[in-house]
Amino acid sequence: MPLTFELQATCPDTGARAGLLHTDHGTVETPRFMPVGTVGSVKALAPRTLRELGTQILLGNTYHLALRPGRETLRALGGLHRFMAWDGPILTDSGGFQVFSLAGRRDVSEDGVTFRSHLTGDKLFFSPETVVDAQRDIGSDVMMVLDELTPATVDRAEARRANARTVRWAGRAFAHARATAPHYGHHQALFPIVQGAVYADVRRESAEALLDLDAEGYAIGGLSVGEAAPVMYDMVEVTNEVLPQSRPRYLMGVGTPQNLIENVARGVDLFDCVMPTRNARTGSLFTTAGLVNIKNARWAESAEAVDAGLDGYHSRTFSKAYLRHLTLAKEPLFMEIASAQNVGLYLWTMREMRAAILEGRFPAWRREWAGRLAEKA
Amino acid sequence: MPLTFELQATCPDTGARAGLLHTDHGTVETPRFMPVGTVGSVKALAPRTLRELGTQILLGNTYHLALRPGRETLRALGGLHRFMAWDGPILTDSGGFQVFSLAGRRDVSEDGVTFRSHLTGDKLFFSPETVVDAQRDIGSDVMMVLDELTPATVDRAEARRANARTVRWAGRAFAHARATAPHYGHHQALFPIVQGAVYADVRRESAEALLDLDAEGYAIGGLSVGEAAPVMYDMVEVTNEVLPQSRPRYLMGVGTPQNLIENVARGVDLFDCVMPTRNARTGSLFTTAGLVNIKNARWAESAEAVDAGLDGYHSRTFSKAYLRHLTLAKEPLFMEIASAQNVGLYLWTMREMRAAILEGRFPAWRREWAGRLAEKA
Repeated sequence: MPLTFELQATCPDTGARAGLLHTDHGTVETPRFMPVGTVGSVKALAPRTLRELGTQILLGNTYHLALRPGRETLRALGGLHRFMAWDGPILTDSGGFQVFSLAGRRDVSEDGVTFRSHLTGDKLFFSPETVVDAQRDIGSDVMMVLDELTPATVDRAEARRANARTVRWAGRAFAHARATAPHYGHHQALFPIVQGAVYADVRRESAEALLDLDAEGYAIGGLSVGEAAPVMYDMVEVTNEVLPQSRPRYLMGVGTPQNLIENVARGVDLFDCVMPTRNARTGSLFTTAGLVNIKNARWAESAEAVDAGLDGYHSRTFSKAYLRHLTLAKEPLFMEIASAQNVGLYLWTMREMRAAILEGRFPAWRREWAGRLAEKA
Repeated sequence: MPLTFELQATCPDTGARAGLLHTDHGTVETPRFMPVGTVGSVKALAPRTLRELGTQILLGNTYHLALRPGRETLRALGGLHRFMAWDGPILTDSGGFQVFSLAGRRDVSEDGVTFRSHLTGDKLFFSPETVVDAQRDIGSDVMMVLDELTPATVDRAEARRANARTVRWAGRAFAHARATAPHYGHHQALFPIVQGAVYADVRRESAEALLDLDAEGYAIGGLSVGEAAPVMYDMVEVTNEVLPQSRPRYLMGVGTPQNLIENVARGVDLFDCVMPTRNARTGSLFTTAGLVNIKNARWAESAEAVDAGLDGYHSRTFSKAYLRHLTLAKEPLFMEIASAQNVGLYLWTMREMRAAILEGRFPAWRREWAGRLAEKA
C-alpha cells in the first residue's frame, strides 16, 4: 500500500500539526521522533525496549549498512526489519550525509560520488540510482534520494548550483524507483530532500521544483550544520509554506528538544537525531527537569530517580547516584539506562506535543516547556 | 530471620542435591548459579533482565564496591539492594581474591592485608573485621570471611600455614559479626571459606576446623586457579564429605557449564563465575548446542536464532548473523544479547539439573548434557 498521511489537527496559532502516517509496517502518530539505528541497532537499546519507550518508527543509515553487514547479507536475510528484529516502519537516509562528512577523499560529478570507505579504504560509488538499489536491499519503508550536501558557510551561488544538482538527482532517483520494485513485498516510499542552505529564495526554489515529483513525503535537509537556530527556524518556515499540507515533512538530523518544539510549531512532522544516544554516552541527560550532567559530583549521593517525570522502567527504577556510579565505572549498563532516558525524553516530548495539538493547547504547552527542557536541572 | 537451608532431594547415585535457601530477600532454589555484579551491575544486564533469565541471587564484590561507589555512599543510600535496584538476595565475597590478584604491592600480616587500590593507588587495609564492616555497609544477605589466598603452585606446608591463618581469621570474622548488627533490618549470614589448595588432607583439616563455627553455610575457595579439573573435583569431593548435609555449599569462582555439572554431582549448591559475562564480551557464547564463536565467518548469513534451545527474548529473537554483525561493529547492544545468552544458558543448566535431581534422573541428564555443552557447535 502506498504511504498515506492523514492530517488530524492543525494548531490555529502556529503551524503545528498532528497526523497519522500509514505504512505497511503500521501507523506512526505524528509529530514523531525517530531514534537512530546507524549500523543496525539503536545504541544499547533492544527493539522491545524501543517499543516500550514509545518508538513507532526508526532510522537506519544506508551508508553504514551498505558497508556493514553489506547489501548482499541484508538481501540474503530478508532485509533490515528481519535482520534487526524490528517490525515497525523504518526510514533510511541515502548515505549522502556520511559520504560528505565521514568518507575519505571524494570525487563528485553529475553522475554521482566516488569515495573511499572510512572502514576499509575501498573505493565505492554512490549515484541517485545505486542508493535507491541499496535501500531496496535494506527494505526501508521510506527511502531518501541522494542529495549534494554543502557546508554551512556556502555562498548563495554555490547553494543554488548544488541544489540544482540535488533536484536533478531527485528526478533520476524517482525514475529509478519507478523502474524497480521492492524485494520484500511491502511498499517503499521515496522522499526528495529540500536543500538551499540558509537562503530563503533557494529553499523556495528547491521546494517548488520538487513538488513536480508529487512525492509521498518531503524531507528538509542541510540544516543544523552550524547555522544559528533562528536561521534554521526561518528556513523551515519558508520551506513549509511551499510544501503541501497533505504530505508528511521530515526535518533531517535535528536536534535538541527545544529545536523539536520550535520546528513542530513550524509544521514539521518527523525528526531524527543522534543527540539522545550520543549524549547518553558522555553522561549528558535530557530530563523533564532539564539538562543533567550525571558525572557531576552533585549527584554522588542522590537517591532521586533518573527522571521521576517519565514513566519508563529505566527513568523510574534507578537513582541518579547509581547511574553516576555506572557511568564513572564504565559499566556497560549505564549506556542502556542513559540511552533509554534520553530517547524516552525525546519520545515523551513528541507525545506531549501531539496531545497538546489534538487538544488545541499547543501554544500553552510550548510556553511552559520549551525553556524548561533547555535549562540546567 | 536466620538463613535456612531446606534439603529437598539427594541423588541416590551421586552427591547431587536440590534444596531451598531461605533469605530475608526471598528463597533461592538450589543448585543455583549467581551472576556476578562486580561493581554494582551485572555487565549489560538490567535487574529486570536478570529476573527474566531466572536469576534468584547475585554476587557483588566487596573490594570493587568499597572502592567505588565506596562504603559511605552505599550506607547513605540504604545499601546495595536499593542502590542497584535488586530486591533478591545478594552474596558478597570478602574482597580477598581481588586484594591478592588485582591490587598493587601488598603486605600480609596476622592482623590483615595492607595494599594499594588498583584505581587510585591509595593505601588500604583489609582485616577480618573491616571486611565484615564493609559487607554490613553493603548489606549483602550472605557475607564471606577474609581468607588468605595462595597460588595454585603452593606446596603442602605453605598451604597448611595459609589455611591455619584463614581459619584463625574466620574465627575473628565470626566474633566481629556477632558483635555487630546489620544496618538495614535484614539478616546477614556469614560463610567461612574452606582452603587447602590441592591437598586433600589440608582441605579436610580446613573443613573440620570451620565446623566449630556452626555457620549458616560454607564456601569452598582456592579452586579453579590453574589446577586440572579432576583435581578440583577431588578437592570438592573430600571437602563435601566433611561439610554438613544441612548447610548450603558454595563453590567460589567456578566455572564452565561442565564444571558446574561435575561439581553439582559432588554436592555443591551455589556457584558464581565471571565467565558467562566475560566471554560474552569477546563473542564466545555458551549455547544448548555447544560453544559458539559468534565472530566466525560461518555465521555471517546464519538466520538461526542465537540459541533456539532457550526460551529467553535475547536467545530467540535475534539471529546469529545479527549478533555477529553487532559484535564486529562493536554496537553496544551486542553485550546485552551475548550476556543474556550466556547467563541464560548457565541458569538454564542449573534449572535443568535441579529438575533432574528432584525427578530422580540426574545421572541420565548428566550423561546426556555434560559433553554436549562443552563441544564446539
